Amino acid sequence: MKPYQFTQSEALFERAKKVVPGGIYGHQTPLLLTPGSYPAFFARGKGAHIWDVDGNEYIDYMCSYGPIVVGHLNQRVEEAVRKQAAEGNCFNAPTARWVELAERLVSITPFADWAAFAKNGSDVCTWATEVARHATGRPKIAMAQGAYHGAHAWVTPVMSGVMPEDRANIVYFRYNDLASLERVVEENRGKMAGLIISPFRHDAGHDSELPVEGFLSGVRKVCDDNAMVFILDDVRAGFRLHLGGSGEVFGVRPDLSTYCKAIANGYPLSACMGIDRLKKAAAEVFFTGSYFTSAVPMAASLATLDELETTGGIEKMRTLGEMLRDGMLAQARSHAIEVTWSGPPALPYMSFQADGDKHSRNKLFCGEAAKHGVYLHPRHNWFLSAAHTEEDIRRTLEVTDDAFAAVQKQFGN
Amino acid sequence: MKPYQFTQSEALFERAKKVVPGGIYGHQTPLLLTPGSYPAFFARGKGAHIWDVDGNEYIDYMCSYGPIVVGHLNQRVEEAVRKQAAEGNCFNAPTARWVELAERLVSITPFADWAAFAKNGSDVCTWATEVARHATGRPKIAMAQGAYHGAHAWVTPVMSGVMPEDRANIVYFRYNDLASLERVVEENRGKMAGLIISPFRHDAGHDSELPVEGFLSGVRKVCDDNAMVFILDDVRAGFRLHLGGSGEVFGVRPDLSTYCKAIANGYPLSACMGIDRLKKAAAEVFFTGSYFTSAVPMAASLATLDELETTGGIEKMRTLGEMLRDGMLAQARSHAIEVTWSGPPALPYMSFQADGDKHSRNKLFCGEAAKHGVYLHPRHNWFLSAAHTEEDIRRTLEVTDDAFAAVQKQFGN
Repeated sequence: MKPYQFTQSEALFERAKKVVPGGIYGHQTPLLLTPGSYPAFFARGKGAHIWDVDGNEYIDYMCSYGPIVVGHLNQRVEEAVRKQAAEGNCFNAPTARWVELAERLVSITPFADWAAFAKNGSDVCTWATEVARHATGRPKIAMAQGAYHGAHAWVTPVMSGVMPEDRANIVYFRYNDLASLERVVEENRGKMAGLIISPFRHDAGHDSELPVEGFLSGVRKVCDDNAMVFILDDVRAGFRLHLGGSGEVFGVRPDLSTYCKAIANGYPLSACMGIDRLKKAAAEVFFTGSYFTSAVPMAASLATLDELETTGGIEKMRTLGEMLRDGMLAQARSHAIEVTWSGPPALPYMSFQADGDKHSRNKLFCGEAAKHGVYLHPRHNWFLSAAHTEEDIRRTLEVTDDAFAAVQKQFGN
Repeated sequence: MKPYQFTQSEALFERAKKVVPGGIYGHQTPLLLTPGSYPAFFARGKGAHIWDVDGNEYIDYMCSYGPIVVGHLNQRVEEAVRKQAAEGNCFNAPTARWVELAERLVSITPFADWAAFAKNGSDVCTWATEVARHATGRPKIAMAQGAYHGAHAWVTPVMSGVMPEDRANIVYFRYNDLASLERVVEENRGKMAGLIISPFRHDAGHDSELPVEGFLSGVRKVCDDNAMVFILDDVRAGFRLHLGGSGEVFGVRPDLSTYCKAIANGYPLSACMGIDRLKKAAAEVFFTGSYFTSAVPMAASLATLDELETTGGIEKMRTLGEMLRDGMLAQARSHAIEVTWSGPPALPYMSFQADGDKHSRNKLFCGEAAKHGVYLHPRHNWFLSAAHTEEDIRRTLEVTDDAFAAVQKQFGN
């Protein structure tokens, strides 16, 4: 198969650079990918397949960096959207979907008594820290060094435009290092409002790390012993590992948890869920936006949850992720290439051990895959969806076998 | 006509309170309205008319607090949405709509060379201050005391959860008081990154104020003299006063301007536009969100701009707003009630002079109007849309005449 060409993507990107800072900014900028091997613009999607503006088709393992969890144009979701959109979307107040979705989320989430809605993951992660501060009357929030909890100034990975004051009340520990958390809490005794942590470590540019035995339960105990609010950032993993929240998988229950991404299959919605004890404080921290109560994304969310539940979507993502993992690991062995496979099956990541921090082999590998119809990412975890099929995985493995060969050819074993 | 009942709204609100902090939080909470006189939940909309969950119909002068600018279910917008949605919405990268919309906005906005997109007004207002800081290497942002530029901690009107550090780099002047700005800039000489200001003063709970002669040009000169970035917050007024930005109406051109609300007729989109000199800094300040590049709201925005342009929507909103104003002012006079009408015709506000800061008469007035099918707000500016008709205004004036009578009956003249 001839490698893909990106003529239209490149022409559009040239136009984009004239009228948009950087052409495409943020996590979707092509600058983080393999130059010349990826499209910059997409045209359409169906299930787990996407087509770029040049007409090239991909089996997609980024799922729009998470949101697409039951596939593009999922029939149940689109039908719910059409039905809601025919009545209207954005009003002076919510629709009944607001109540129905909050009730639904509370009913499937063992720890939670309430839900609040917004648009971005950043919205809910930032607001959760404010609720923790207001509830405790204390200023400091602990987070794992290098973790991503949104693009706001207190946590953005890029320091341009960030002031020292933006981070004056953030303190840092190391993921999977309980002693480092205990130390920072001790150093800030009486000032700790809470902590925010992802269910597993999925920092971009690094191998993922599942929580080691006793870590999250230890975190829970530190919070309990110090009356700190435990915020689980489930923006990336939520609704891919467990319908009741990723804490259920790892045996921990937070006080607040944040969702976005997979919550509505690409329709713009984020949520924070919480325990009854924090409900009053949550009602008192101002939280609003022009589209926070819009009905279409909530209808999409209800249908997405239905689809995941009735089709066993969580289990399917796990099984297909395992098939992908087993296939690619066997290929790596057959090419005598040392790779590290990390993360849970539904959100896996693979790196090349000889790459160190550079991702050179991974950029070649993922670039080769992209040019032949399989969309992976060289420095960000991947996403399975419930729309992937065993046939997709088989076809993917044909492409990745050639990509491993290309790495072997250029870098040796 | 019998006053509306809100049985279903009340039942839903009771359910909401169980599973959502405050039931409905933020600017749409019924707590800011007239108890017993407003619905809490909506079911559908068409043009300038909306129906609540009890089936009560309203001529709507809040337009979802701004977003609905060409009417609910506008044919051109919905057709563009359907067409885009059939291809897909949320991908690993933008679609061509990203480029087309940026080009379109730049082409209609005299001051601007580029556009960046997000989801909330808060997103773009906060990011604009960060771009100003990064571009100038200086920390301080000036804003008008009491102004609303989003729900983030540096500017939220409610202090719960806000830390002193969140506002350490914000300094305050008074709207329409140039000397107060000059003073604060002098006090912070060498530290001022920029200022953020709305094209007219539209703080909730107050009469609106148009900029006095020389104020905005004076603000522009202060920015130029001190190499400060002029950020125009056009989130509320944008695309209702002028297609080229509200600065065009008031004779001032900013360096950055922020949009949300009317930009896509209720589809979730916000934007920041800027001058070439700030483009590099803008590309360097991290800005991203799960749905920032989604195509459907951009297709909706292109169609909304088409609709406004081809139907003379801006002029229509002005004319209808004048008709509403003239009618209501005549009614107030006939009832011998002193009112203050403020703001531009497309975003008017009316208060009762005898109310002082309390809004008691206005709550009764707007409550009576709501219970009889006209949706106004007692403490927030109103919004005309291009879907309103002269017949809507005539019907509205029948209702408001009775509402004035109710005020006269309860409060006297």
